[in-house]
Amino acid sequence: MSLLVQKFGGSSVANLDRIRNVANKIKKFKMQGDDLIIVLSAMSGETDRLLNLAKDIDQFPNQREMDVLLSTGEQVTVALLSMMLNSMGIKAKSYTGAQVGIITNDVHTKAKIERVQEDKVRKDLEDGYVVVVAGFQGVTAGGEITTLGRGGSDTTAVALAAQFKADECQIYTDVDGVYTTDPRIEKKARKLDTITFEEMLELASLGSKVLQIRSVELAGKYNVPLRVLSSLMDEPGEGTLITFEEKEHYVESEIITGIALNRDETQITVLGVPDRPGIAFNILDAVGKENIDVDMIVQNISQDETTDFTFTVNAPDYDRALLITQNVANDMGAKEVLGRTDIAKLSVVGVGMRTNSGVASRMFHALAKEKINIHMISTSEIKVSVIIESKYAELAVRVLHEEFSLHLSH
Amino acid sequence: MSLLVQKFGGSSVANLDRIRNVANKIKKFKMQGDDLIIVLSAMSGETDRLLNLAKDIDQFPNQREMDVLLSTGEQVTVALLSMMLNSMGIKAKSYTGAQVGIITNDVHTKAKIERVQEDKVRKDLEDGYVVVVAGFQGVTAGGEITTLGRGGSDTTAVALAAQFKADECQIYTDVDGVYTTDPRIEKKARKLDTITFEEMLELASLGSKVLQIRSVELAGKYNVPLRVLSSLMDEPGEGTLITFEEKEHYVESEIITGIALNRDETQITVLGVPDRPGIAFNILDAVGKENIDVDMIVQNISQDETTDFTFTVNAPDYDRALLITQNVANDMGAKEVLGRTDIAKLSVVGVGMRTNSGVASRMFHALAKEKINIHMISTSEIKVSVIIESKYAELAVRVLHEEFSLHLSH
Repeated sequence: MSLLVQKFGGSSVANLDRIRNVANKIKKFKMQGDDLIIVLSAMSGETDRLLNLAKDIDQFPNQREMDVLLSTGEQVTVALLSMMLNSMGIKAKSYTGAQVGIITNDVHTKAKIERVQEDKVRKDLEDGYVVVVAGFQGVTAGGEITTLGRGGSDTTAVALAAQFKADECQIYTDVDGVYTTDPRIEKKARKLDTITFEEMLELASLGSKVLQIRSVELAGKYNVPLRVLSSLMDEPGEGTLITFEEKEHYVESEIITGIALNRDETQITVLGVPDRPGIAFNILDAVGKENIDVDMIVQNISQDETTDFTFTVNAPDYDRALLITQNVANDMGAKEVLGRTDIAKLSVVGVGMRTNSGVASRMFHALAKEKINIHMISTSEIKVSVIIESKYAELAVRVLHEEFSLHLSH
Repeated sequence: MSLLVQKFGGSSVANLDRIRNVANKIKKFKMQGDDLIIVLSAMSGETDRLLNLAKDIDQFPNQREMDVLLSTGEQVTVALLSMMLNSMGIKAKSYTGAQVGIITNDVHTKAKIERVQEDKVRKDLEDGYVVVVAGFQGVTAGGEITTLGRGGSDTTAVALAAQFKADECQIYTDVDGVYTTDPRIEKKARKLDTITFEEMLELASLGSKVLQIRSVELAGKYNVPLRVLSSLMDEPGEGTLITFEEKEHYVESEIITGIALNRDETQITVLGVPDRPGIAFNILDAVGKENIDVDMIVQNISQDETTDFTFTVNAPDYDRALLITQNVANDMGAKEVLGRTDIAKLSVVGVGMRTNSGVASRMFHALAKEKINIHMISTSEIKVSVIIESKYAELAVRVLHEEFSLHLSH
């Protein structure tokens, strides 16, 4: 008998048939005697529908109200699943983030979980209930509804698993595990049985849609065993377990573990900035104050006492970030601000990179052979990321998958 | 400068254009210096959409989960309106029933308001905010989400008006006031400038869709001035004010104030019940325990030591009520249980009836002339209701409107 936290994403609860599948899966675990905390996303498409309503009202809608609006999506799915479970004779109770006590800070639309209350869930588990919690949302100490940002449901699941010391946090998705790259782009992509936390963290930060980065960080911090499984298959198999141990053979034979592609980034360049100390700070501070995360940052060597400064932000933040940057650029007497949304970030990730030099140059060479131009480069100990034109994205993934022989099991 | 509570129904917030109209109306009042508490329903159709999802899961869905599900409808509209107001430069904050502190008992899907917390609303009004509250919903002292039943948004509005001693509670609907009967059925129907609380109470209880009965009761109990107005017209006019005074001239000249038609009732008959004391109690108690409201009740004179017992319930409760009645009827050895859903309740209402005998007989005679058969009859001091076959409903309304000359202003 285990305590499991199971998270089902939007496509797993997209309609009543899918919700019934989820209920049947839960029933199997319950019959085995497991205690269950279930975390759900909104029906796929629902969050976008609500976002579009808000965008039609205001280009920059009131963020407090955005959270009141968006949090309804998960509330619908937890109620429907609990109804379904009860109608199958399985005792279940649904909770919104506010009800169950997912206490967050007050940064609307991007709140961070501060603590999780225990009493209701603990009591319900003791009374034999399946506890069904709305993902992606919480409440401030003052009672304001908050949301955790895109993919926040994974974070909810991990936070609950950490708080209740769950035996495993299982993330059910529409893929059956973590692959060497997106199988829709490269047919030879191979499922990994295990992956290290560090690698998963890089993959997540680089745009792999399998797990949201904050949830991986949180799981690493609290040693929560995390497993990615398929919700669509009747027998999900073992999926991919995210392990805390680095396997020795990685260093021996595998240089690269996977390739991540992120199409959600956009690029903003400030041209002709007077090259004075504090430029980068002035721009990034203004953007950061609006709670916009900046990913890659590049500043070129200065020419004629001016320099060019480029950074990337997530696509949903693009309009706001561009506006803010234009204001700051004006104030500092910069020449021009350019924005591009037709870009993609491509990354190769692997713990093995630490002891193998030459990954970056093999990567650049393979791309150059296909005449794919690289705009920006960013590296860390276990990954190399490049920004390229988005039209070359799939080609680049296949080229690199081949280059590093990822289809071969090592 | 007044404190106004304004309630807008589902058709007034059916889409973003309608919500913008509501925001513009609110702006006018705010510019005049009024303090405003706004209560909203869900977008029209949304509650039914959610109900149908639940029905597809379970004929008798878990009622706790039903409330979690249904309460999302109003949460969406309050967020959208607050966003709209903020984007127009008007400070506004939305609240769910739980957030603002509409505390109810724990009868899910039909909860009753026990008290209303003041602190948040009071503070926001002092700070110049328009306070936008989700109607139809509340929360138990234990933190469970509840809903107030159909039309509960009117009740929310009146409860807030009573708590904050509003100068007026204005109910904006898709009609411009209370009419002598439904203008869609009888073109000669006339708008009333005033109507007494007693008459409005009868009209509401008899199925007039203009105001929900509980809200009228509550307004009467706490002396809340209540006004029905049109939300669709730019200049709503004065609508109909519900007054506490009985006007003398009513008694002099007007016998009947209005005609109400209710198509939402259904009829359940138990045939061949052994005629022993306690029959009515046994049946009604079983139904009442499931929180199903019974409206008309008729028990015929007994024949051969058995009797027939008939009552009506609202259409949404029909399936459950029939099942319960069948079980009780079996236990008591009754002969048969019959149900009918093709019925309508037709009522004539007027304070003047008190001093004018003969209203019932004029009503029955007028219907008989058109060969409209009467199934059940129920009377009070100021109304007469009959159950007829629903196919005759419109004809019967027109016949009675003519019979009592309601098109003439007195």
